[in-house]
Amino acid sequence: MGPVVAHQAISIDGFCAAPNQSFDNPFGDDGMRLVNWMFDNDDRPADKAAVADLTTQSGAHIMGRNMFGPGRGPWDESWTGWWGDEPPYHSPVFVLTHHPRADVVMQGGTTFTFVTDGIESAMKQARAVAGDGRIQISGGPGTVNQFLAAGLIDELNLHIVPITLGAGERLFTGVDNLKLEPVTVVAGSPLVTHIKYRVLH
Amino acid sequence: MGPVVAHQAISIDGFCAAPNQSFDNPFGDDGMRLVNWMFDNDDRPADKAAVADLTTQSGAHIMGRNMFGPGRGPWDESWTGWWGDEPPYHSPVFVLTHHPRADVVMQGGTTFTFVTDGIESAMKQARAVAGDGRIQISGGPGTVNQFLAAGLIDELNLHIVPITLGAGERLFTGVDNLKLEPVTVVAGSPLVTHIKYRVLH
Repeated sequence: MGPVVAHQAISIDGFCAAPNQSFDNPFGDDGMRLVNWMFDNDDRPADKAAVADLTTQSGAHIMGRNMFGPGRGPWDESWTGWWGDEPPYHSPVFVLTHHPRADVVMQGGTTFTFVTDGIESAMKQARAVAGDGRIQISGGPGTVNQFLAAGLIDELNLHIVPITLGAGERLFTGVDNLKLEPVTVVAGSPLVTHIKYRVLH
Repeated sequence: MGPVVAHQAISIDGFCAAPNQSFDNPFGDDGMRLVNWMFDNDDRPADKAAVADLTTQSGAHIMGRNMFGPGRGPWDESWTGWWGDEPPYHSPVFVLTHHPRADVVMQGGTTFTFVTDGIESAMKQARAVAGDGRIQISGGPGTVNQFLAAGLIDELNLHIVPITLGAGERLFTGVDNLKLEPVTVVAGSPLVTHIKYRVLH
């Protein structure tokens, strides 16, 4: 059975999303500083390898509504995600929401399915389509926290960015008594350190 | 000039001290889980090396009162620290406090001097005795945060322990716009990962 994995870029003070996310500012105030390492990394091979791991084809993805878009409340059905006509997932993506919506089929194999009955249901649906493949909990941090607290993640990849944000959304809120074990520790570059943890159940 | 360094063991959710520190419980509830890696490490050479770095002779130390002892308010002068007659510092130690107290001379070269006029004064006094030697900001996290916020630390060593504590005292509270650069990243053992950061000023 493929593992359930999550990747999160995290500031040294523990934030994975900056405040004031909006359409014009999808990573929040200064939030791009958390993901700069993902771009223009030909001369940073360890960072490039981390991006390759993060973007490896998964059998299914699960994400929170706030990662799918900036809207709240009932759907604006013209919104089909941040990623244009061909999102980078190329697999079924289950979006956690309180508001029902019909599936949205995109180009390149990505279908967004909206799950209104909770994380266990999302996981069950994801496993049904992923089979023995990997399932990725794509984010944001609140969603990763829910799956961590429920013991549903096998592998947590932290990309530790050596800056303080001072505010935003914390990873690990409500995730008590978690025990991890480092699997690989990689000095990526001055921009980021990559640690792959196994979640001990 | 020797650098100003700090070492902090930190849980994956950002706490460097557990709640409810007391005489019987100097690391707080379950706080020993943050420092287990420091002991019985003959078969964990990277962790042993990190302890050696941490305990390298410094020219002077600075610590907060809560690290010196569990008492608050006016001094109980029978209290001379957690460490017995011969503390492991072997150098002058400046203790930040609001309550004046005469120097306490211990065996083995440790003298505790109590500083009531703030962190800059403590740093000035420490530099006067350390000369070109290293100055260590010994803790706890609140004290390290004050020195980080004031731009007075050159090197921050984090010993990242892969557990969540869920409560306690956070590193980086009030330390906004900090930028660090990883100098060494060491996969210590299943218990801990060691990252030495340079503080970018």
